[in-house]
Amino acid sequence: MKNQTLKVEGMSCNHCVNAIESTLKEIGVKGNVDLNKGSVEVIYDESNINLEAIKEAIEDQGYDVV
Amino acid sequence: MKNQTLKVEGMSCNHCVNAIESTLKEIGVKGNVDLNKGSVEVIYDESNINLEAIKEAIEDQGYDVV
Ligand SMILES: [Cu+2]
Ligand SMILES: [Cu+2]
Repeated sequence: MKNQTLKVEGMSCNHCVNAIESTLKEIGVKGNVDLNKGSVEVIYDESNINLEAIKEAIEDQGYDVV
Repeated sequence: MKNQTLKVEGMSCNHCVNAIESTLKEIGVKGNVDLNKGSVEVIYDESNINLEAIKEAIEDQGYDVV
């Protein structure tokens, strides 16, 4: 399992936390959002998905991965 | 139908808009949220519900009606 922390802009409330964590879960990624830090720790299986696809899933929800 | 605009604190994103509008709809109230102004216009039937119950429904979602 690979572990990476992304900087994500635009998350403002617990609904955003849920939206991102649920979306990641759907693609088999464990996401831990830190709303105050504006970060998302993603834990994923590299043989299953790559970081680019994870970033896209987050951006599709309306947030910016910086 | 009665029409009133409430000042609501804590709304930060479109998820919040949806949460409030859906909750109001469930109790038979039409709600128009203005995210920038931090206001919620409520349109309701006084014979059906009173303003106090509407405020409670909004506060139960985690927002402050001020
Ligand atoms: Cu949000
Ligand atoms: Cu929100």
